[in-house]
Amino acid sequence: MTHRPYIAVVGAAEASEKELSLAERVGDELARRGAVLVCGGRTGVMEAAARGAARRGGLIVGILPGETRAEGNPYLTVAVATGMGSARNAVIVKTADAVIAVGGGYGTLSEIGLALNVGRPVVGLETWRVERAGRPGPDPGVRVASSPEEAVSLALRLAGSPGSPCR
Amino acid sequence: MTHRPYIAVVGAAEASEKELSLAERVGDELARRGAVLVCGGRTGVMEAAARGAARRGGLIVGILPGETRAEGNPYLTVAVATGMGSARNAVIVKTADAVIAVGGGYGTLSEIGLALNVGRPVVGLETWRVERAGRPGPDPGVRVASSPEEAVSLALRLAGSPGSPCR
Amino acid sequence: MTHRPYIAVVGAAEASEKELSLAERVGDELARRGAVLVCGGRTGVMEAAARGAARRGGLIVGILPGETRAEGNPYLTVAVATGMGSARNAVIVKTADAVIAVGGGYGTLSEIGLALNVGRPVVGLETWRVERAGRPGPDPGVRVASSPEEAVSLALRLAGSPGSPCR
Amino acid sequence: MTHRPYIAVVGAAEASEKELSLAERVGDELARRGAVLVCGGRTGVMEAAARGAARRGGLIVGILPGETRAEGNPYLTVAVATGMGSARNAVIVKTADAVIAVGGGYGTLSEIGLALNVGRPVVGLETWRVERAGRPGPDPGVRVASSPEEAVSLALRLAGSPGSPCR
Repeated sequence: MTHRPYIAVVGAAEASEKELSLAERVGDELARRGAVLVCGGRTGVMEAAARGAARRGGLIVGILPGETRAEGNPYLTVAVATGMGSARNAVIVKTADAVIAVGGGYGTLSEIGLALNVGRPVVGLETWRVERAGRPGPDPGVRVASSPEEAVSLALRLAGSPGSPCR
Repeated sequence: MTHRPYIAVVGAAEASEKELSLAERVGDELARRGAVLVCGGRTGVMEAAARGAARRGGLIVGILPGETRAEGNPYLTVAVATGMGSARNAVIVKTADAVIAVGGGYGTLSEIGLALNVGRPVVGLETWRVERAGRPGPDPGVRVASSPEEAVSLALRLAGSPGSPCR
Repeated sequence: MTHRPYIAVVGAAEASEKELSLAERVGDELARRGAVLVCGGRTGVMEAAARGAARRGGLIVGILPGETRAEGNPYLTVAVATGMGSARNAVIVKTADAVIAVGGGYGTLSEIGLALNVGRPVVGLETWRVERAGRPGPDPGVRVASSPEEAVSLALRLAGSPGSPCR
Repeated sequence: MTHRPYIAVVGAAEASEKELSLAERVGDELARRGAVLVCGGRTGVMEAAARGAARRGGLIVGILPGETRAEGNPYLTVAVATGMGSARNAVIVKTADAVIAVGGGYGTLSEIGLALNVGRPVVGLETWRVERAGRPGPDPGVRVASSPEEAVSLALRLAGSPGSPCR
C-alpha cells in the first residue's frame, strides 16, 4: 500500500469562482507534493480540486454518496459508491490523514466536525469560522491558511508527513 | 406508526453540570409535549436528556455508534446498534424532524452540519456559533434559544408540529 | 434501557400470502413473549411481522433505508431513517440479539450472512438454504424452524433469553 | 474518471491454500484485462487477489471496515477507511460492476446477497451454494465458474464490458 499521505479536500458542490480557483490550486499542489487527494467526487470544489490534481497526474479518490459510480466527476482515478448519502462524509474524513476545507456549505461544516471528532487535523481556506460556546474566538481545531500552498504545507505537516515531490 | 414529532438532542458525552442540567430539562419538556426523543444513546448530554424524558414516561431512541446495544444508557426505550462509529451521527439527524444542540464538542458540530445539510432545522442552546466565510455574524441556520423550554417550542414549531401534552 | 430481547424479523418487501401469514404469526408471538421486534420497517414480511406484534401491543422498531421516516409502515412504534440504502441491513442485525428469516429475496440472504458474520444466531422459516463450498448439506448457522412459534422459541433461546409473557 | 470496469473480489480473511491460489489468479487476470480490482482490503482472499493484481501493475481499491487505513494489506493502490464494520460490505459491492466470490465465510455470503440485491452480477468460484425456499437447485443469481480465467471473463461480460488488456 502506498505510504503517501492522503489529504481530503472538502467544499460545496456549488461554489464561487474564487473557491473553485482555490480548490484547483490546492489539488495541483497536493499532486505536486505526492499526496493522494480524497474528495466527495462530485461537482464544485470537489471537481475543481480533482481537476487540479489530475493535471499533475495525481491520484484522486472520490467517495460518492450515491448507489453507483456514475455521478463521479471526470477527474477521479478511483470512484467509490457508498450509497450512504451524507453519511459518506464520515468516510471521506476517516480515509484522510488531514482535511482541507475550502469555502463550503453545511456539508462542509459537517466534515469539519467529523474530522476533528476522529482526530483528523483540519486546515481552512476561506471556510467556516466555528466558535465553541463560552469560548470566544475561533476554535483552534481549524487552522487557518491564507493560500492554497500554505494550506497544503500545513495539512501535510499536520498529517505527520512532509510529503515529497516524487511519487 | 406514531405521528408524534421526533426531536434529536445532540451534545457531548462529557459535559459540564450546566449543560447536563439544560439537557435534562430539554428531555423533560420534550416528553411532556409528546415528542419522541432521539439521541446518540450514550453518556453526558445524551444521557441527561434521556433521563429527563424517562422521568416523564417519554419514548427515547438511542442511536449507538458501536456493534452492540450494550453501551446504551439506562434510560433508552429503544437502542439501535449501528456499528458505524461517528457516521451514525447522520442517522440521528435523519431520524429527527428537528435537532436541539446543547453545548457540545466536535461531534455535535458535525451533527449541526449534517442536520442543516439534509434540511433538518437546528436549535442551539449554549452551543457552537458558526459563521460562514465572507458572511459576518452567526449563520441563521442555527436558531438560538435561551432556555430549554424555548428550545423545545422552537424545535417543535420548526418540525412542523405544535406537539401536544398528551400522548 | 429495556433488557428485553431484541429479535429481528427479516424477509422480502414482496412476499407470498404464506410468507406474510408466517411473518404475522412470528410478530404476534414475539410480542406475546415480550421481545422487541426489529425489522426493516417497510412492506411485505416487515409489515406483516410488525402488524402481528402491534396487535399484541408489542414494541416495534423499523430501521429504514431512506432519508426520512415517511416510508415506514403504519405499525412501527419507532422508525429510524438511516439514509444508507441496503447497508442498513447491517444495522438491523447488529441491533438484534437473534434473527428470524422468513422466506425472502437477496436482501434477506444478505441479512443472514451479515447476522452470522457478527455472531447473531439465525433461525429460518421457509427461507434460503445455504451450503458452504466443499461442505455438503445446509450450513448449521441457519437453524431451521417448522412453525412461527418454534422459530420464536428458538430465537429467544439462542438470544440468551427465555423472554417472558409480561412487559 | 476511468471507464474501466470495476470488479470486486470477495472472500474470507482466513482461507485455504487453494482459495488463496484461486484468488491470486483472479487478481492477476483482472489486472491483465484492465479491470480495477475492488476488495475488502484485508488478509486472506482479499490480500491474495490484491497481490495477484499488483504483480501485473493493476489498480486495486481496498474498502476497509475500520477507522483508519492502517489495516490495509500491502498491495492496495488506494485504501478507504469506512469505519462502518461489516456494513462496508455494501460499499464494496456498490462500487463494483460485478462481483467474484472465492470460497468464503459468512461475510462473503452477505456480499453475495448484497450484490444481487442491488443488481450487481455475481460469479462464484468454489463459493456458497444458495437455494431459495421452494425452488430446488442453486439460485441462478450466482453464476458458477470453474477457473479464475472463466470467472473473470464471465464477470467482465456481465459487467457490460469486454475488458481489454490495455490500460
